[in-house]
Amino acid sequence: MSEQNDAMVIAGKRYLSRLLVGTGKYKDMQETRLAIEASGAEIVTVAVRRTNIGQNPDEPNLLDIITPDKYTILPNTAGCYTAEDAVRTCRLARELMDGHDLVKLEVLGDQKTLYPNIVETIKATEILVKDGFKVMVYTNDDPIVAKQLEEMGCVAVMPLGSLIGSGLGILNPHNIKLIMEAANVPILVDAGVGTASDAAIAMEMGCEGVLMNTAIAGARNPILMASAMRKAIEAGREAFLAGRMPRKRYASASSPLEGIIG
Amino acid sequence: MSEQNDAMVIAGKRYLSRLLVGTGKYKDMQETRLAIEASGAEIVTVAVRRTNIGQNPDEPNLLDIITPDKYTILPNTAGCYTAEDAVRTCRLARELMDGHDLVKLEVLGDQKTLYPNIVETIKATEILVKDGFKVMVYTNDDPIVAKQLEEMGCVAVMPLGSLIGSGLGILNPHNIKLIMEAANVPILVDAGVGTASDAAIAMEMGCEGVLMNTAIAGARNPILMASAMRKAIEAGREAFLAGRMPRKRYASASSPLEGIIG
Amino acid sequence: MSEQNDAMVIAGKRYLSRLLVGTGKYKDMQETRLAIEASGAEIVTVAVRRTNIGQNPDEPNLLDIITPDKYTILPNTAGCYTAEDAVRTCRLARELMDGHDLVKLEVLGDQKTLYPNIVETIKATEILVKDGFKVMVYTNDDPIVAKQLEEMGCVAVMPLGSLIGSGLGILNPHNIKLIMEAANVPILVDAGVGTASDAAIAMEMGCEGVLMNTAIAGARNPILMASAMRKAIEAGREAFLAGRMPRKRYASASSPLEGIIG
Amino acid sequence: MSEQNDAMVIAGKRYLSRLLVGTGKYKDMQETRLAIEASGAEIVTVAVRRTNIGQNPDEPNLLDIITPDKYTILPNTAGCYTAEDAVRTCRLARELMDGHDLVKLEVLGDQKTLYPNIVETIKATEILVKDGFKVMVYTNDDPIVAKQLEEMGCVAVMPLGSLIGSGLGILNPHNIKLIMEAANVPILVDAGVGTASDAAIAMEMGCEGVLMNTAIAGARNPILMASAMRKAIEAGREAFLAGRMPRKRYASASSPLEGIIG
Repeated sequence: MSEQNDAMVIAGKRYLSRLLVGTGKYKDMQETRLAIEASGAEIVTVAVRRTNIGQNPDEPNLLDIITPDKYTILPNTAGCYTAEDAVRTCRLARELMDGHDLVKLEVLGDQKTLYPNIVETIKATEILVKDGFKVMVYTNDDPIVAKQLEEMGCVAVMPLGSLIGSGLGILNPHNIKLIMEAANVPILVDAGVGTASDAAIAMEMGCEGVLMNTAIAGARNPILMASAMRKAIEAGREAFLAGRMPRKRYASASSPLEGIIG
Repeated sequence: MSEQNDAMVIAGKRYLSRLLVGTGKYKDMQETRLAIEASGAEIVTVAVRRTNIGQNPDEPNLLDIITPDKYTILPNTAGCYTAEDAVRTCRLARELMDGHDLVKLEVLGDQKTLYPNIVETIKATEILVKDGFKVMVYTNDDPIVAKQLEEMGCVAVMPLGSLIGSGLGILNPHNIKLIMEAANVPILVDAGVGTASDAAIAMEMGCEGVLMNTAIAGARNPILMASAMRKAIEAGREAFLAGRMPRKRYASASSPLEGIIG
Repeated sequence: MSEQNDAMVIAGKRYLSRLLVGTGKYKDMQETRLAIEASGAEIVTVAVRRTNIGQNPDEPNLLDIITPDKYTILPNTAGCYTAEDAVRTCRLARELMDGHDLVKLEVLGDQKTLYPNIVETIKATEILVKDGFKVMVYTNDDPIVAKQLEEMGCVAVMPLGSLIGSGLGILNPHNIKLIMEAANVPILVDAGVGTASDAAIAMEMGCEGVLMNTAIAGARNPILMASAMRKAIEAGREAFLAGRMPRKRYASASSPLEGIIG
Repeated sequence: MSEQNDAMVIAGKRYLSRLLVGTGKYKDMQETRLAIEASGAEIVTVAVRRTNIGQNPDEPNLLDIITPDKYTILPNTAGCYTAEDAVRTCRLARELMDGHDLVKLEVLGDQKTLYPNIVETIKATEILVKDGFKVMVYTNDDPIVAKQLEEMGCVAVMPLGSLIGSGLGILNPHNIKLIMEAANVPILVDAGVGTASDAAIAMEMGCEGVLMNTAIAGARNPILMASAMRKAIEAGREAFLAGRMPRKRYASASSPLEGIIG
């Protein structure tokens, strides 16, 4: 396999970038645009409840800056705490975006942790899939739930690395690995990445991609961090494809260590 | 500070690449050359005791492939277990390379672990500095020893991440941080990097650079891994300069976590 | 609070031991008995589907060895993969044990990982609580699910440290802490403990207790390991009550480190 | 091997307790005494430069509280930054204690980190051994240095887990293992333990014992923490002797994980 032809395929579309980014928490639209450009992202997720993508016709529309001809726009349901709210939000987005049906579903458990509510997520998934949406679903790192969401028809499953906005990295790589081993759809790490190495680690584990927002927008220099993330994702992917050296207790060790993560 | 002007300075010379690579363990000279090119390295270290850099005039000379006009050649004393041997090896290199005085000193403790012998390393450093060498010194992660080697006149101090050839990454980032806090010369992580994220982590901690060999040469696809490492080093450096987001227990946490590493 | 009066209270009953043990995987009944005695456990969990507690009147009954007058017997639903099976198993146990209503509910997701199936676990919980059972529930480390199970009426919530039988310890202490912060019922770590320090870590985090089986039964010397676990649980509990020293970067550091775990 | 006969032997003397404690940082002599009693320690280390063991005949003498007939007193050279100072301190202790020759040597690198100065430690070791002292030596976690100190005649080698007073636990268990693999004298972890599980981990790795001070004296309730540490040391030792279960990725895994630490 050549790295030139290495692409991530989601809902039948090929992407050369495996970094998905959000649009929240930037200083202004200009910084948003520059950071997204520096990230090299091809998929940009937009919180429908917090961003004007046409709901308010008289105000600046994010889609004039991050244009659907250049980016795959991924409306998300951030801020929804029930299946009902999330479904309504996806339908609003589809309407505003002329039938666009690729969405990121997140149904949150509480405002303090922003941890997903799995019961409501499953409910919403069922309705959305039946309704013709292509659902990329944000979930916890439970391998049974991940498989169930895949079997319900999600086009990608996106377990958290750690809490949204925490920057703590991937707290339980073991579970992410279990999810990947069983999966037949792309697995992307969503939430928790704090710095470049976190993104590289996700890719080295074999994830198809990483979605992040605060790690870029919350850096001191978001545009430079966006560039760092782009390179980290590529580095991690290439390292995965290149096949890392075995871990050994020492150079002369006859048998390599078999680690939990690697 | 702009990342465009961001350079590593060693012994008065500026380098745009912060990745230093070795030449050992490759399949052949061709693979060595391609991997080094893919790594973007400007400094290439050569084990004088294992590589022909002119000792055997009738055999292929590595310096015809990795040429001193293109790369800064860094002769190293791999395979030396006493100060005496290491000093003799440096002098041989200087002679073979027309007075070249930048060397990487390593004096090893035993063949099993290849852990540095600090007592012999200090002895050799004293002699080499007095003899006019510019010494980049391989050492353990002891902050007191690192400071002592700096004060003796080394141009760079290079603590191990973990054992040579182990690929275990940086086992004690706390010590590397103590070394950097006290240092007035460049600190580079030498040995232990196993995959791209390990390199990124070293750079995110604020190291000036990383030296590696097995992580590239021992990968299934060394040339692709060299590319991964180049990007990982750049990603880690940019993330360091960009200033990562604070770690938080959860998004709504009022005060960020202050972690051991970050 | 004095450590003399320190007790774990579950379903209104006080226990001086915070170590709960299983009865599986021992060589014979004699080893089972000796290990349980050495562990000091007061609550012993029994897999109704794998253990004779009266289903087969002509075979040896575990309850003749581990007697209900000496131990609180905790029938569990190990081996159940649906809510229906788990409910039926609990009812069988209640019948065999003359109305005993304290049960450990586990509904598993698959045979490979033995990870809990949360959807089925929630279903079974609803039925069992309504049916008058006092349910100690095995669950993943999802803080939203844990809270939901508490609110449904479980008398204790028991998140996994890592997979049943893995011995990998607590892979995501961050989540266990989130669960404890929000809880009004006892939180016990169930599954994943591999050695004594894992048990101590669980208790130092503030868990009410730890349930284990393989860590004892799978040790080379189960009876000695049972003693180790008893001491580790007590050590961890006392350390929690004693209030550990602050973590510092170095002795002279003015401000302590605030770590993710501690 | 029966755990009943399990003893730590240092300089030819058998000890049933593997926990060594210091006397610094307590509120008063009464608390010191009670904590040491609760710890079950048989070896108590005393900083000669900070504690009156007879230097000031008119002031309270610690040895009247912690009496040499009940405890093995281990004078230490805390506060010494040169070999000369350390040697002088040991000689003073021997004189004050009627020829007592078991000492704990520590020569520190700086006041900020209290990291050992290995060069001076080696110098002092040479003099003290020649002078008839039985030297238990505090050192970094360098396996080559540890072996050298053993070969110079130390009766025990005591690598740090992390910095004195930091409470960060064992930062590099890999190195401690390398030290133990090569050792023919007892290896004890000295410095860095913060809570009970840290002590258990050291023992589970196979260390002969653990020396601590701040972890007990710096706890909110030192006497209860001393009890916790006693149990943790015993738990860790018993777990080591009992032989822990193998680590597995999941219960049904055919081959166990071989981890770096365990």
